[in-house]
Amino acid sequence: MSIQLTVAELATLVGGKVIGDESQIIEGLGKIESASPNEVTFLANPRYAQYLAQSKAGAVLVSPGTPAVGPTLIEVENPYMAFLVLLEHFFSREPWVKGVHPTATLEPEVELSSDVSIGAFCFVGRGTRIGARTVLYPHVVVGPECRIGDDCLIYPNTTIRERVHIGNRVIIQPGVVIGADGFGFVPDTGEYRKIPQVGTVVIEDEVEIGANTTIDRATLGETRIRAGTKLDNLVQVAHNVVIGENSVIAAQTGISGSTRIGRGVRIAGQVGFVGHISIGDGAQVAAQAGVGHNIPDCGVVAGSPARPHGLWRRIEACITRLPELFRRVRALEAQLKQIMTSSEKKS
Amino acid sequence: MSIQLTVAELATLVGGKVIGDESQIIEGLGKIESASPNEVTFLANPRYAQYLAQSKAGAVLVSPGTPAVGPTLIEVENPYMAFLVLLEHFFSREPWVKGVHPTATLEPEVELSSDVSIGAFCFVGRGTRIGARTVLYPHVVVGPECRIGDDCLIYPNTTIRERVHIGNRVIIQPGVVIGADGFGFVPDTGEYRKIPQVGTVVIEDEVEIGANTTIDRATLGETRIRAGTKLDNLVQVAHNVVIGENSVIAAQTGISGSTRIGRGVRIAGQVGFVGHISIGDGAQVAAQAGVGHNIPDCGVVAGSPARPHGLWRRIEACITRLPELFRRVRALEAQLKQIMTSSEKKS
Amino acid sequence: MSIQLTVAELATLVGGKVIGDESQIIEGLGKIESASPNEVTFLANPRYAQYLAQSKAGAVLVSPGTPAVGPTLIEVENPYMAFLVLLEHFFSREPWVKGVHPTATLEPEVELSSDVSIGAFCFVGRGTRIGARTVLYPHVVVGPECRIGDDCLIYPNTTIRERVHIGNRVIIQPGVVIGADGFGFVPDTGEYRKIPQVGTVVIEDEVEIGANTTIDRATLGETRIRAGTKLDNLVQVAHNVVIGENSVIAAQTGISGSTRIGRGVRIAGQVGFVGHISIGDGAQVAAQAGVGHNIPDCGVVAGSPARPHGLWRRIEACITRLPELFRRVRALEAQLKQIMTSSEKKS
Repeated sequence: MSIQLTVAELATLVGGKVIGDESQIIEGLGKIESASPNEVTFLANPRYAQYLAQSKAGAVLVSPGTPAVGPTLIEVENPYMAFLVLLEHFFSREPWVKGVHPTATLEPEVELSSDVSIGAFCFVGRGTRIGARTVLYPHVVVGPECRIGDDCLIYPNTTIRERVHIGNRVIIQPGVVIGADGFGFVPDTGEYRKIPQVGTVVIEDEVEIGANTTIDRATLGETRIRAGTKLDNLVQVAHNVVIGENSVIAAQTGISGSTRIGRGVRIAGQVGFVGHISIGDGAQVAAQAGVGHNIPDCGVVAGSPARPHGLWRRIEACITRLPELFRRVRALEAQLKQIMTSSEKKS
Repeated sequence: MSIQLTVAELATLVGGKVIGDESQIIEGLGKIESASPNEVTFLANPRYAQYLAQSKAGAVLVSPGTPAVGPTLIEVENPYMAFLVLLEHFFSREPWVKGVHPTATLEPEVELSSDVSIGAFCFVGRGTRIGARTVLYPHVVVGPECRIGDDCLIYPNTTIRERVHIGNRVIIQPGVVIGADGFGFVPDTGEYRKIPQVGTVVIEDEVEIGANTTIDRATLGETRIRAGTKLDNLVQVAHNVVIGENSVIAAQTGISGSTRIGRGVRIAGQVGFVGHISIGDGAQVAAQAGVGHNIPDCGVVAGSPARPHGLWRRIEACITRLPELFRRVRALEAQLKQIMTSSEKKS
Repeated sequence: MSIQLTVAELATLVGGKVIGDESQIIEGLGKIESASPNEVTFLANPRYAQYLAQSKAGAVLVSPGTPAVGPTLIEVENPYMAFLVLLEHFFSREPWVKGVHPTATLEPEVELSSDVSIGAFCFVGRGTRIGARTVLYPHVVVGPECRIGDDCLIYPNTTIRERVHIGNRVIIQPGVVIGADGFGFVPDTGEYRKIPQVGTVVIEDEVEIGANTTIDRATLGETRIRAGTKLDNLVQVAHNVVIGENSVIAAQTGISGSTRIGRGVRIAGQVGFVGHISIGDGAQVAAQAGVGHNIPDCGVVAGSPARPHGLWRRIEACITRLPELFRRVRALEAQLKQIMTSSEKKS
């Protein structure tokens, strides 16, 4: 955090154009309303534009054309993305594991590419291959015959069972379990008999997996998480599930066996999917939904059982008004009774 | 996977009768619609009978009396069970841990029966006994004074705390925690005071426990999972819960303290049970149900709060039609207003 | 468990007054309806008063003024609290780890205060400090630059990542993950780009964290659990969440990013909170609630979406009667049709 850069140097890092004092020294990042003269901040949301004139920041990342009403500006196409670049620049840290720790146990026929780091007490099973620059933090267990790609970060206490394949630039947070047996049993005269789970798991490039998430191996074939997909913590992915590219799944969601999730799908927290259904590309699922049926491409659902989002909103509005509806029906009944009584009297 | 068997040998393995070419060599298993001549498949679901005549499989496991319309048949009483036997035969793998690894730490007075395997970096506490042929994969922690039976498989990064008892043929997937302190606190002038959790956990024979599932020790006495019950991943079992024989509980379900689940109960995913209730033998609980009351034997419930399944279906059908009901009530109100107005005019 | 105390000695331990035989030897604790003469029990709930006269217990902890109708009494202000004191006295166990195990790996510049215990295969990163009498059970991973206070118990297979701060008398059950990266990604031309999570986590004094719970590090700044708060198993706490003092959160609850939970809040199991909301002091949230909005101080909510508890009860009562409401509306429609028909005939 003792990094010091001039505004001109920052602008070069993010490919931006300075309007104001290029020589100011910047040592960190802040919020637009509170940044100090040696901090850089950004303006992306118009709601915060009111803070620009009074900002004491040493520089503000802004979109082109923002009026120069006070602090030095750095014009960039996407101020938030530029801020992320600087965030990484100021806070980048080396992994805290370097080289192969003497306590790590590598079984025979393990192949390590160049610059692999393996932390204390890691176990790597027979015949497993690990790609270049991948880091296993302490206490990672990798079973035999696995393939792990380049530039992965695998955090402590993660278990990767036998024959699992993991792509490049995959990040696995602590406590994850990949390749446990799927939950497959067949009833047999009052007891359950285990269906052998002889398939495996494939995790493609650039996937990130949250802490204590579990991804089961397939019964036959494979469970697969396609490239670029991000799973949060404590997510359950059952056997033979396939998740498409660039989907995001929030914490504590569960996906039952053989269900297929499309690409670009956005799933909130604590959602449940039954097995053997198909969720279309670009679909969105609200928190705590219970999805029992296919969702078409770009479908948006909510509720348990899940319904299309518009219908769900109408129904929820009705539910809120149910006590009122009961009163209205009682009033109708009373009025009608009165009418019937008076018409009986007349006749 | 380089196993080769003739159809005659397969038939012997499953106790079946061949109708067709007994000498065909089989090297693997496939699906009826795509199996090749050196693969065996099965026909259990009538929906797939259409594929039988065209199947190129080297042999098809079928029920007695199935017409021999094409490929070689092997008649067996239960084709799917026979397929499972062959699945295990073709894919059976030895555990990838053999013997006691030199890095394993066994405290004094540990007793190991014959042919126990203990993986790298396992820790076994003082006075713990482990039964014959049980396998501890790398990075298993077993506290002191535990009893673990014969023929168990305990996968990596599992924690079994002190004084827990585990039966025979138990399978524990990675990351499981057995015997953590139950969640017991008593309010005391605005703060919470910990109630010591001095009981234990008993896991009976043939239980299987899914990855990252947690089973808490009892406050006093024991938390108990009875024989043959199967728990999926990320399940929470609180202190003093008792689960009966041969029940199945899907992923992310939570059972609060002192609740008793019967035998042969089937519980779907993400179900919640409050504490101190009793779920009858043979009951069934639908996904995401919230169970706040006892369920009688063979009761079937759904919804949150959970209701008997038939009532839940009726209510859900009503909820779907709520916008329609509001329209109908508005129409009634309008009609009635008209009637009242016209009757006022008349009078 | 071979502890033996006279009733007089027990009374001294709990600051109570004996009415009856002070010399009776007590060796354990029991329930009022089944305790034997060498066991002590307690009477706190009036429902159990019926058992007092017949109780065979060697002594019963009671409130002052309880009639001496049978067994020896020990009068104390709070019988249940006194029972907890005795529970701890009879069952107190030393941690099963003592001293620093020779297999533990301490990186350079680790500082251990007096009487720290570190179990087998623990890893402690560079520059981390651990306070007096704290116990790390086997297989705990603590990253670099952490601060852990005095008198903590950290159970096996827990991961504490870099720069996390933990207070005094904190208890962490097995499998917990503290300081994993928060779930932060920004969409960028169809893919997701990781937002660096450069903040940290602060756990204050007397917090307890249940098995396999996950607490993510902040994007910037800190995720904080304030003093005295207790989290159950499999709870998810996202980045930048703040939880106030002396709150309790039951199993499988999830709290999304930047949400603030007040002090003295009680949250049941499987609750979900969206991000960026504020839950007032003393609020209560029922099991499986889905909280999408702020809750005021002392607010009580239930349901998904969560509603004030009274409204939720009224609505649930209406929902249960929906099939009846549909019948009543059908009856109204039929009656009205009849009226309209007969009035048409008349005119």
